[in-house]
Parts: sequence; C-alpha cells; structure tokens
Amino acid sequence: MTIDPAIRDVVEVYRALTGIVTPRPIAWVSTVDRQGLVNLAPFSFFNVFGSAPPVVVFSPTLRRDRSKKDTLLNIEETGEFVVNAAVETAIEALNLTAAELPKGQSEPDFAGLVMVPSERVKPPRVAISPAHLECRLIQVLPVGNQPLSANLVIGEVVLIHLDDALLNAEGIVDPGKLKSVGRLNGDSYIRTTDIFDLARPVL
Amino acid sequence: MTIDPAIRDVVEVYRALTGIVTPRPIAWVSTVDRQGLVNLAPFSFFNVFGSAPPVVVFSPTLRRDRSKKDTLLNIEETGEFVVNAAVETAIEALNLTAAELPKGQSEPDFAGLVMVPSERVKPPRVAISPAHLECRLIQVLPVGNQPLSANLVIGEVVLIHLDDALLNAEGIVDPGKLKSVGRLNGDSYIRTTDIFDLARPVL
Repeated sequence: MTIDPAIRDVVEVYRALTGIVTPRPIAWVSTVDRQGLVNLAPFSFFNVFGSAPPVVVFSPTLRRDRSKKDTLLNIEETGEFVVNAAVETAIEALNLTAAELPKGQSEPDFAGLVMVPSERVKPPRVAISPAHLECRLIQVLPVGNQPLSANLVIGEVVLIHLDDALLNAEGIVDPGKLKSVGRLNGDSYIRTTDIFDLARPVL
Repeated sequence: MTIDPAIRDVVEVYRALTGIVTPRPIAWVSTVDRQGLVNLAPFSFFNVFGSAPPVVVFSPTLRRDRSKKDTLLNIEETGEFVVNAAVETAIEALNLTAAELPKGQSEPDFAGLVMVPSERVKPPRVAISPAHLECRLIQVLPVGNQPLSANLVIGEVVLIHLDDALLNAEGIVDPGKLKSVGRLNGDSYIRTTDIFDLARPVL
C-alpha cells in the first residue's frame, strides 16, 4: 500500500511513521519553569546528531488542540533541559511521567522519583538514571502549526554524566550494563538485549 | 564520571553519546547525483519528528577531514532522498553500503541490491526493504564545521510505501513482521525482538 500524507488523516500518517521508524531512543526530559517547578516527560522523537558540538534534537509535537506541551514552554522560557537515560529499572516510572498532569503538579513527585542537581543547568537529573546529558537550547524550529506538528528542539550537550559501572574494560559503554529501552509503536517498548555485531567493511 | 565536551577529544564525546543514546533507528538513504548515479548509505543519527507535515531528520556528519559525504552533496544538488527500512533480511547488505566507495561507484551494485523506481522523487527504493519514505528536502541545517559536526537534513515525507504483509488485523505495523534493526555503539546492532507493553497512564 502507499500512504499519501497530503490526503490522509494525520493519525494514520502518525501510525505509519511510528510503525516504520523503529526502534526509537527515548529522551526522558527534565525542565523547570521560571518558578523552578520541575517537569519530566518522555519523548521518542529524539536522537543525537553530531559530536562537534555535541547536538541532540527532540520534538515535543503540538497537542491535538495545537497547544504547546509544558516541556516546550519551559525550554522556551529557560533555554535549558536535561536528557535522562531511559533504562529498564526506570521504565515503569518513566511511563508514569507520560501522564498529562494538571499545570503546577510535578511529574517526579507523581512517579516517586528522586531528583539530583545538575552542574551546568537548572533542571535537575533523575537519580536512578545512570547517564544524563545537560543541554542548552540552540534553537527551536517549528515545522507546521497543526495537531502533531513537529517542534525541533535543537540542543547542545554541555555536560555528560555517565556511571562508571556502565563501562567495559576499554572504557566504552557496555549495552548489557546500560540496559537502555527504546520505543516501538502503540504501547510497545523494546529492550536492547538481542544484540549482534557486524564489522564495517574495509575496502 | 563527567565528560565536558568543551575540553575533551571529539572521539571521546562521540563514543559517550553513541553509547548512551540507544537504540537508534537506521535511515538507509538512497540519493542520486545530477547524472543519476545512485548512492546508498546507512545513518543512525535519524528519527521521525512530526506528522503534520510528516518530518524526518537525519545527519550525515562531516568527515574527519571536514568534507561532506556524497549523500549530503546529492541532497544539496537534488533536494530529494528516500529512507528505506533497515530490516533483518537486509542487514548484511546494509552494512556493505557503509563502505566509502570511490566517487562514481554505486553502493547498490557493490552490495548486490536491486533498486525499484520511486513515484514522487528521483532516488530509487531498495527492493528488499518492506517500507520506504519518499522525501523532499525542507532544509539542511549545519551545526558546526568541525570533524563529526552535525548536518541536520530536515525532510518532508511526501509518500509512504508499506508492504501490506507487515500489518496486523487492526491495520497497524506489527513489529514482529517488520523485524527492524537498530544501532547501538561500536559494531553492535539490535533486533526488535525483546518487546514489552506498558499502557499509558490514565488520570
């Protein structure tokens, strides 16, 4: 079948894209508003894109009523956010932080999560996450103004925290120790357990 | 440990980021140059970011000598690309297309891949991939001009191809049928087999 996005319902397009583009890494993003209230929410429209400077991009899409999510509003106010690693031991709590709480209520409290201070930015870090990226906003780039339109939040990683226990003998992150979790479509998540290696071809 | 990208070697930063931000979806990108020569290469700095319009972003980073990869040069020339689904049955061929062939040599030929025409754009599709996103360039956004700096290739999906055999009874992509493959760090890939479901919290 073919799906022409120009003439199909946006939910159908969303379902096709989130079904095909898998597995997606999860940015578990902490932000603060001007008063310092902490917001925490997961986003699977996310990845790293470069190393010099280190760049991450995630997208808090517009809601069905075209309003902006609190995460986006906070970043527009403060220019700062933290990406907390989404790992197996934290995934039930992460899922709870996907709830749309009333404005003024804190997701970390709701999910029973302990937060610890960051070093370079105001948003705190999720204590049980074994890795964190402290980020400063480079630019918000909206692409469309419809329900489910993208808002590219382009950030520079200004400090990386990494639990030493995640590293192998060569000082590289061991996926079997990190135990990161990714997103598929619907309600489905994927563990990073079924690993295989392929050496890059050398000509 | 903490890693301050401002004072660390770029390769160390790259290793930390690709170790932490996992699992990453793979864009297997076909492009053509002005003469119509097909280029095909995999990129794991990639994701979908919105649905209205449907937006994908991937990043062909600058090479160690700061030169641009052929994929980026072709997209700057033609404004078009196709994202082919990276799935288990195609992964050995996909890995072959990561080779840096001499300019003028075609990766599909090198990897023994049959290509089929697209409908809306000039770059052809990989026949054995069961899903394809035909894309037109919105914008290339460079972030830095150093080795391994990001080039955000922001594209609009103008047509989605999806093999009917991938769908479940509800018309949704079944991950067990798609069998997509993601990237971890180093030479490691991940199969999307170890799946679990978590219902979104309802307040």
